[in-house]
Amino acid sequence: MKAQHFIFQFLKTKPCMETLDLEIILIEDNPNDAELTIRALKKNNLINRIVHLKDGAEALDFMFREGAYAGKEHSNNPKAILLDLKMDKINGIEVLRRLKSDPATKTIPVVVLTSSNEDPDVAICYELGVNSYIVKPVGFENFTSAVAQLGFYWLLLNQPPVR
Amino acid sequence: MKAQHFIFQFLKTKPCMETLDLEIILIEDNPNDAELTIRALKKNNLINRIVHLKDGAEALDFMFREGAYAGKEHSNNPKAILLDLKMDKINGIEVLRRLKSDPATKTIPVVVLTSSNEDPDVAICYELGVNSYIVKPVGFENFTSAVAQLGFYWLLLNQPPVR
Repeated sequence: MKAQHFIFQFLKTKPCMETLDLEIILIEDNPNDAELTIRALKKNNLINRIVHLKDGAEALDFMFREGAYAGKEHSNNPKAILLDLKMDKINGIEVLRRLKSDPATKTIPVVVLTSSNEDPDVAICYELGVNSYIVKPVGFENFTSAVAQLGFYWLLLNQPPVR
Repeated sequence: MKAQHFIFQFLKTKPCMETLDLEIILIEDNPNDAELTIRALKKNNLINRIVHLKDGAEALDFMFREGAYAGKEHSNNPKAILLDLKMDKINGIEVLRRLKSDPATKTIPVVVLTSSNEDPDVAICYELGVNSYIVKPVGFENFTSAVAQLGFYWLLLNQPPVR
């Protein structure tokens, strides 16, 4: 693998201003996992702007500017959404269903990042149109590396839709 | 980025037998790009089995066991499909449309790998449900590194659907 070389090559050729647009939305109700994820992305200079939404209900309010976010003008057009599945109130599968069934949000890349590798969850997510499904690796180092890897992929390698 | 470290950690913990199942379908009509892609994947030990289909018509015949592939028993359930867009006979967008509209194939991860970063193509692909869209980097080294990176992501990090 020449991942590091590629990253270096890539960053060298990106204009500085462009990196200011990097943005991710993290939907995660586990504070430890959220902190680890944000740290891993920031440590690798993969994000300048991240929004952390703490459960499925807050996520839907934010994305569709409802509830506490009604009438607020904010960017809800990230390069990727990282979505946990097992959450209180509204779970990740329901959030995914809403995002992928609404024309305003259906093309945003959604990456499920979950501790569940149970068959029904995986199959349902792909049926609903998830872009990618990552099982959280066990252990601090593996978790951090996986987040860095997926951050690189979705923030720098993947071409997001222009909306 | 600790990509290399993560890959090492990951490979250490994967049982040997599992890697035998790794498989990718490459749909690419440019022989040079196809060869570079296959070499980059093999060089990084990312695949044991790859199928290269040389245009959109052959791809659809293979995936749906029609035409020259009628009645043949072969695996058409890869961990990912790499799909070029600009191809003779049937282009990549039409292939994507067919794959994502058929219940038998809609959950297979499809990564567009193309030289086109034109807005209509990107937008149409996301509307059709592409999992990821990669613009082929210019230059041998960047191209090879990007393929290795996406190969790692879809073959080792992403959890494919069980079908």
